[in-house]
Amino acid sequence: MKKTYQEVFEEVYEEVEYLPKQGTVADYIPELGTVSENRFGVYLASLDGEYAALGDAYEKFSIQSISKVFTFAMAFDVFGGDLWMRVGVEPSGDPFNSLAQLEYENGIPRNPLINAGALVIADFLLSHFEHPREAFLRFLRKLGNNPDIDYNPKVFESEKTFGYRNAALVNLMKSFGNITHPVAEVLDFYFFQCAIEMTCQELATSFLPFANHGVIPHSGERILTASRAKRLNALMLTCGFYDEAGQFSFKVGLPGKSGVGGGIAAVHPDYYAVAVWSPRLNKKGNSYLGMNFLERLTTKTGMSIF
Amino acid sequence: MKKTYQEVFEEVYEEVEYLPKQGTVADYIPELGTVSENRFGVYLASLDGEYAALGDAYEKFSIQSISKVFTFAMAFDVFGGDLWMRVGVEPSGDPFNSLAQLEYENGIPRNPLINAGALVIADFLLSHFEHPREAFLRFLRKLGNNPDIDYNPKVFESEKTFGYRNAALVNLMKSFGNITHPVAEVLDFYFFQCAIEMTCQELATSFLPFANHGVIPHSGERILTASRAKRLNALMLTCGFYDEAGQFSFKVGLPGKSGVGGGIAAVHPDYYAVAVWSPRLNKKGNSYLGMNFLERLTTKTGMSIF
Amino acid sequence: MKKTYQEVFEEVYEEVEYLPKQGTVADYIPELGTVSENRFGVYLASLDGEYAALGDAYEKFSIQSISKVFTFAMAFDVFGGDLWMRVGVEPSGDPFNSLAQLEYENGIPRNPLINAGALVIADFLLSHFEHPREAFLRFLRKLGNNPDIDYNPKVFESEKTFGYRNAALVNLMKSFGNITHPVAEVLDFYFFQCAIEMTCQELATSFLPFANHGVIPHSGERILTASRAKRLNALMLTCGFYDEAGQFSFKVGLPGKSGVGGGIAAVHPDYYAVAVWSPRLNKKGNSYLGMNFLERLTTKTGMSIF
Amino acid sequence: MKKTYQEVFEEVYEEVEYLPKQGTVADYIPELGTVSENRFGVYLASLDGEYAALGDAYEKFSIQSISKVFTFAMAFDVFGGDLWMRVGVEPSGDPFNSLAQLEYENGIPRNPLINAGALVIADFLLSHFEHPREAFLRFLRKLGNNPDIDYNPKVFESEKTFGYRNAALVNLMKSFGNITHPVAEVLDFYFFQCAIEMTCQELATSFLPFANHGVIPHSGERILTASRAKRLNALMLTCGFYDEAGQFSFKVGLPGKSGVGGGIAAVHPDYYAVAVWSPRLNKKGNSYLGMNFLERLTTKTGMSIF
Repeated sequence: MKKTYQEVFEEVYEEVEYLPKQGTVADYIPELGTVSENRFGVYLASLDGEYAALGDAYEKFSIQSISKVFTFAMAFDVFGGDLWMRVGVEPSGDPFNSLAQLEYENGIPRNPLINAGALVIADFLLSHFEHPREAFLRFLRKLGNNPDIDYNPKVFESEKTFGYRNAALVNLMKSFGNITHPVAEVLDFYFFQCAIEMTCQELATSFLPFANHGVIPHSGERILTASRAKRLNALMLTCGFYDEAGQFSFKVGLPGKSGVGGGIAAVHPDYYAVAVWSPRLNKKGNSYLGMNFLERLTTKTGMSIF
Repeated sequence: MKKTYQEVFEEVYEEVEYLPKQGTVADYIPELGTVSENRFGVYLASLDGEYAALGDAYEKFSIQSISKVFTFAMAFDVFGGDLWMRVGVEPSGDPFNSLAQLEYENGIPRNPLINAGALVIADFLLSHFEHPREAFLRFLRKLGNNPDIDYNPKVFESEKTFGYRNAALVNLMKSFGNITHPVAEVLDFYFFQCAIEMTCQELATSFLPFANHGVIPHSGERILTASRAKRLNALMLTCGFYDEAGQFSFKVGLPGKSGVGGGIAAVHPDYYAVAVWSPRLNKKGNSYLGMNFLERLTTKTGMSIF
Repeated sequence: MKKTYQEVFEEVYEEVEYLPKQGTVADYIPELGTVSENRFGVYLASLDGEYAALGDAYEKFSIQSISKVFTFAMAFDVFGGDLWMRVGVEPSGDPFNSLAQLEYENGIPRNPLINAGALVIADFLLSHFEHPREAFLRFLRKLGNNPDIDYNPKVFESEKTFGYRNAALVNLMKSFGNITHPVAEVLDFYFFQCAIEMTCQELATSFLPFANHGVIPHSGERILTASRAKRLNALMLTCGFYDEAGQFSFKVGLPGKSGVGGGIAAVHPDYYAVAVWSPRLNKKGNSYLGMNFLERLTTKTGMSIF
Repeated sequence: MKKTYQEVFEEVYEEVEYLPKQGTVADYIPELGTVSENRFGVYLASLDGEYAALGDAYEKFSIQSISKVFTFAMAFDVFGGDLWMRVGVEPSGDPFNSLAQLEYENGIPRNPLINAGALVIADFLLSHFEHPREAFLRFLRKLGNNPDIDYNPKVFESEKTFGYRNAALVNLMKSFGNITHPVAEVLDFYFFQCAIEMTCQELATSFLPFANHGVIPHSGERILTASRAKRLNALMLTCGFYDEAGQFSFKVGLPGKSGVGGGIAAVHPDYYAVAVWSPRLNKKGNSYLGMNFLERLTTKTGMSIF
């Protein structure tokens, strides 16, 4: 590639900045609705040390469901294949918070990247760590190379106050025996993880190990075996975008994960990690501009896993 | 009818006592599982003052879902047609605790006689009565003509400890805005109503007003208008037996309601009310022997609403 | 009752004729769409010989799904309980032509009064009668006391040309082994039965045996045992109105069956049969004015099975 | 990679030949059930001209659903994005022949690689080609570099005789207006494509263009633009294995497609195409030994798209 990533970023940005302002900011949690809808940032970190940044790349935002990748990585490292007794690896084909599917399938969530699956992963982590919140923050600060990474207490409280659907999911799974800790403890940790705030720069940096066969580039520390890192990427590709996973794979062609805060993080194995943030969501709950930017990025660079 | 109801009872009993002991006692709430599975009682009260009793007709048992008829009657009297903004009158065609259907139908339960619907009715009652538990007990004691009718605290606690699926239902409805009180308050009242204990004699007596156009025979007090009593009966016929309502209508042909405690109460409008109790349940959660007894009763007397 | 049925008819008609003209004529089969939407007729025949008629009570219209009651009655008489190996007796809780439910339930329709169930009943009749069309016409002419009752060839052809969803139902059931004859033969008979035309007078007359414990009043011939007639009524009450069975039971309180031609036939056991016709359908596919008329009729007479 | 693909093949084969003989040969179409269950063949063709073969690599077998990739490629080339008006790109999360999902989603299939979607693609091809069967054979012979590629008339007849579920799918979609040709014509072409027979060698050769940005290596002819070839691969990854797409992505990590004849074809973009055949299927309808072989192949070579 002759052009630098920064040059490609700027070309793509020129295209997308004139797109109609579609989509709406998530408001199912009031605290999320306070974000200015026109924020936009993107950051790419490559394995050979190059990086590119644009817009609000250094602004904190609520990572929400992107946190599911991190908790899954932690749990996968600790529990390995034991996870698959209680959660699957198939795309759900349904919205992120479907109770119907969970009921038909006897309380076993389709995969760890939908809400029900992440709640089971939270339950796993509660079994292993004495102080799971602290362990999680430590893990994120190590990945993101920044000791300041933290959660937003207001978002946490807001999640807690309006998280009825997640409460329904945990209760349903508990009725099937697929939750071992008290409902309130599982929800508490889950709302905590959703309330984490990171910048595009931190998110991209934190995803780099998944492009690097499980090793943190800046420290050399291995957080997952190469085989598990590969499988995590496979999982993100088929399950990372709720019922729009096919679209993302089809248009962007990279493993990744979105959050209702408007963030998307993705990796090109052996090459780079990228994080984009724009709070307006399409009807499927994924960042409208974020998906658009990534689609053009992989098209312009001709780089995708396919 | 030349034979007395007592004679018919005895004839039917001779037939059913040799039936194979099929079905199992409900154990999803441990406290329910402690009942002896061979208990059997039945009581009929007719509008012209005749009655018949057999077996454990004067033993208390947990009325469970039969309580839904009573809370609905209270709420129907207070709120009338306003109920239909938040709950339907259609058979569910699904098990009593289906979350899938509730999710597809945006948190509006199919009818007031399934769990989700009864939880909405509980929410209504919490809006009207300052002391809903007391009001409910007062209502039952008036209907059953016995000031001792009460709830079983052990069953109540057991429901509370293992009621995850009901918690899932309330949370899901709350996420759709169809529950106005705090989740815990609604569940508390609901578990209370399920934990009420009555005898067959008390249950049959309490159902008599529904056979009597809404008037309590022993006191002359009207608890429902004639039109509403008629509609309650219609509702019991189409929705009183979960996904076995058709079978019951087909074989027995009377409006009624079952509970997982093994009780069934039914009415023949203008004639009688009958309550039967036998704790072994068929796969649909209805008393195996109870349904059998009622089927033979209506066949032998040639009396059904059809 | 002091008033004659004719007097009640006229009172009710005065109320309903000023109702807003709601609903739309069925057009999924083009030939049905040619009917004038303002037609209205109603006829009641009582067991003691009284009758009442209003409007277009002697006009032919397409009975459509009401024919399911007649084919079921024929098959019930021949096959009795053997029917229940291949079709249920539960309300469907779903639209009349749901494939989803049929797939989940392995090709066993919920009841004989939805399309899938009627197709299985058609398959039964094909096994018993050498000339099933002729046998069916003979049966209808006997019930309706009129040798001219026949089918409309244009409607039949129209059904055949646009009956893709029914073709899907038969094929799906055949894939589950629940259809024994060739798909085309089953569909052919089914479209034939739907294309039968009758007047309100004929329909009410034909339903009288169901109010009369299975015996045709005008000839004394028994077409069903008393017990089976009772069960057919139970079935109509819980399953006769697709996913609006609860509403009809709730508001009208009579066993009955509707068709997309705008007809409804219902019975009050031991008293009368009534047929009403008005082609405008509500969203559930039932005659808007027909349901309204019957609701007022039972309210005014204070007569319902509840 | 130092080892040749042939060496890796032999190593993997030594491991899998001792695996328990699990799974059963498809028998929903009698003609498929006649294949010996112990056949096993595999062939890999790399873009740099290397190849590897083992076992029955040159035996013909019924490619069944793998044909969906070829018809989709043809239609994608002709119709481009117009396809997406009538078929999606999302994983179905359901068995390959689900009617329920199709009904809920108004006759729009989830993706072109499930039966319903392939039937819509067949309908597209019927609109474009005067002689679609001949055009399809020409396309396959060009890709597979063999003028003898043909269909098996016995399998075709068998499909036709027992294809009730596919008939249900077409009829349902036609009722929603999503099929433009007569039902019988669409089914006829679909059964024809399923009845195509190819060897592992031919299949791998035919998939090479998908690993080669849309160009046939042996002729230099372009059959798809690079962008569309990329999207086809994305589609195979998320949708190629019915409700086991996640598992395949997770364990194998290559875009591919399976058929109930026991074949699987997959590509590693920029590297190779591989086809494996073993008729015993797991519960999800995918070749038990075939999936196992490919999992070990990518693990041993350390090569996957993730």
